[in-house]
Amino acid sequence: MPDAVELIRAKRDAGQLSAADIGWLISAYTGGEIADEQMSALLMAIYFRGLDPAELRAWTDGMIASGERLDLSSLTAPTVDKHSTGGVGDKVSLILAPLVASCGAAVPQLSGRGLGHTGGTLDKLESIPGWRASLSNAEIVAVLRDTGCVICAAGEGLAPADRRLYALRDVTGTVESIPLIASSIMSKKIAEGTSALVLDVKVGSGAFMPDLGSARLLAQTMVELGNAHGVRTSALLTRMDVPLGRAVGNAVEVEESVATLRGEGPPDLVAVTLALAAEMLRQAGITADPAAALSDGRALAAYRAMIAAQGGDPDARLPQARHAELVTAAETGWVTALDARAVGVAAWRLGAGRARKEDPVSASAGVMCLAKPGDAVEAGQPVLELRGDDAARFDRARTALAGAIEIGPRQPVPADPVLERIA
Amino acid sequence: MPDAVELIRAKRDAGQLSAADIGWLISAYTGGEIADEQMSALLMAIYFRGLDPAELRAWTDGMIASGERLDLSSLTAPTVDKHSTGGVGDKVSLILAPLVASCGAAVPQLSGRGLGHTGGTLDKLESIPGWRASLSNAEIVAVLRDTGCVICAAGEGLAPADRRLYALRDVTGTVESIPLIASSIMSKKIAEGTSALVLDVKVGSGAFMPDLGSARLLAQTMVELGNAHGVRTSALLTRMDVPLGRAVGNAVEVEESVATLRGEGPPDLVAVTLALAAEMLRQAGITADPAAALSDGRALAAYRAMIAAQGGDPDARLPQARHAELVTAAETGWVTALDARAVGVAAWRLGAGRARKEDPVSASAGVMCLAKPGDAVEAGQPVLELRGDDAARFDRARTALAGAIEIGPRQPVPADPVLERIA
Repeated sequence: MPDAVELIRAKRDAGQLSAADIGWLISAYTGGEIADEQMSALLMAIYFRGLDPAELRAWTDGMIASGERLDLSSLTAPTVDKHSTGGVGDKVSLILAPLVASCGAAVPQLSGRGLGHTGGTLDKLESIPGWRASLSNAEIVAVLRDTGCVICAAGEGLAPADRRLYALRDVTGTVESIPLIASSIMSKKIAEGTSALVLDVKVGSGAFMPDLGSARLLAQTMVELGNAHGVRTSALLTRMDVPLGRAVGNAVEVEESVATLRGEGPPDLVAVTLALAAEMLRQAGITADPAAALSDGRALAAYRAMIAAQGGDPDARLPQARHAELVTAAETGWVTALDARAVGVAAWRLGAGRARKEDPVSASAGVMCLAKPGDAVEAGQPVLELRGDDAARFDRARTALAGAIEIGPRQPVPADPVLERIA
Repeated sequence: MPDAVELIRAKRDAGQLSAADIGWLISAYTGGEIADEQMSALLMAIYFRGLDPAELRAWTDGMIASGERLDLSSLTAPTVDKHSTGGVGDKVSLILAPLVASCGAAVPQLSGRGLGHTGGTLDKLESIPGWRASLSNAEIVAVLRDTGCVICAAGEGLAPADRRLYALRDVTGTVESIPLIASSIMSKKIAEGTSALVLDVKVGSGAFMPDLGSARLLAQTMVELGNAHGVRTSALLTRMDVPLGRAVGNAVEVEESVATLRGEGPPDLVAVTLALAAEMLRQAGITADPAAALSDGRALAAYRAMIAAQGGDPDARLPQARHAELVTAAETGWVTALDARAVGVAAWRLGAGRARKEDPVSASAGVMCLAKPGDAVEAGQPVLELRGDDAARFDRARTALAGAIEIGPRQPVPADPVLERIA
């Protein structure tokens, strides 16, 4: 039997761990033979030394093997999923899953909850009365078969070792490691049983990866890992300097998603959604025009069917905040920047996000971006509307926004939201 | 209040931690606010990033502050201690403490037990019937006042944070870090209350530090740390390629120590002991000739008084092993090398050392080096005598000795056992 201390020392000293050693490490950790303090020391050594491709494959295999793998083989439509590394105002999944489903694919979107300033897809959908995030495996397959898409919580049975490792990384300063991030994301997506996967790797102030170099490396690492495990995987690098769309929060993002599905979406959100839809359809081997499905109501119909199939009322009025305050332009000119991270933190402080995973979130809290880069504003004109039920939270939200709005004398050149494709 | 995860991340990213942060980290760890898995991640980050001199002083201060500091101010003689990083056959403390005491100093030797192949001073002395390693603080001061020296267990009250941190490092692959080693050793020695300290940093195959560069860095780090805490500190780097003296074990090392105190010691052991004695007397500000004290019986008298004051019978017959086996020379020539680590591991496997800190040790097990480098041997002549009570252990001990004895056609040039002085 391998010795945990010897393996920690080997990685610490830049040695390569065998697939058998890594498999043992993960199963022994899950089984309680390796203590948290040993695993956290190993994770920190991995932070410094990395994992080579063979080690990373073995690490990911170990996490997949710690649980079950969803069986989607009874579906006739090709399966394809999307994963975003998370951004401010990133409600793309809510639009994209029914859009791609309406073009003939089956989209199994197994998601997590938000932690920090970027929000979570499940938290957003839970502002719809009756909607259920937790489905059994049989329900997941049934909703997929009936509506072509499902957005639900990844069950406890998928890659449970990742759940324990992620919780450990969170308290030990070992989150920011590209191989550990890649294996955490990909183990769940591979266990989910999809045949193809498109990654939306966000780059910029509001993203987990602030610079292009590390975002590209993460995307390449995940694309290699997916393909090595038989999942056709590609990635788009997309901008996250500015909130995506105008709504940042939970209910407000559902409302903006529905508007987009009606063909009335803000241009940046529509552009990112259509680029990802085209990439997903390509990976699924389907020839279709997603723009048409968005404008002719097919995508909206698929959305309504999916929400209803999960117990939600697609016509219900969503929770509205009790308080609203405006943030106005300090001068006249063109908005040149609106810092995504600052807006995300403000929405989070208003109650839209959680600090610890057991915290509740407010459905109604959030920030509306009334003006965005490229828009002209007069001094005193509202740029942001802060919303929330708890008046005491507004001051701290405003603090987060200091310096977030930049206004200049010239209209900025619009930037393409898609930076790069990696396949 | 500082945040543990932020401090781990700061050290991980090569930031400098403030003295207040470090003080909080150690007291919060001791108090249970910081979990083992967080501390082990921090220790691994320190392994990679190091601690600068200010951080190292604060880390050491934190460990000293976690417990009591022994008060030796009632003694009239100047206090001076020695610490060895551990070597095979290193029984120097048993001779040195009474020798330096007989020259007018007070020597408070608070020691640990051996772990691994290098043996522990307390384990050796416990082969003397009646001798007690555990003394109260009042007893320590009384024995020191009455006999000029004491060799006993460092109580639970001295630097208890170090005890917990050492146990954690042991299971998390974070032992081999120079600042962590230096602060572990020095926190206990500073808390012990000595005014001066001489470090014997061993270099070579049988030592913790195999190469001169890292041994020198460890010595410099500890010398700086001691002086910064008001303890006059210097170090000698001494060779540990070959066992020191001829006896390796517990009772056999006590017997060789007594022979040395009678003026009949092996030359390498005498040379290292006298060099360390001269350095201790210099640090204590005492002018005396230790060689005279060794040859005229004063040192032996101090030893007998110290053993008796701790309940031991200096005239008792020590335990003898039930079994002995010889390892003979494969050819005729001069012994050119006798690998210290191999001999240490063989003695350990015969029962002289322990694998886990709760294991007992055998008083009688060990290895006698009948021939050492520089000695002429005939093919078939005994070079080593293995001793132990458990016949089943001899085969594994022999395995450790493969290739340990080198015999060549020319007598090797004797090497000075003292390599360098660092002050």
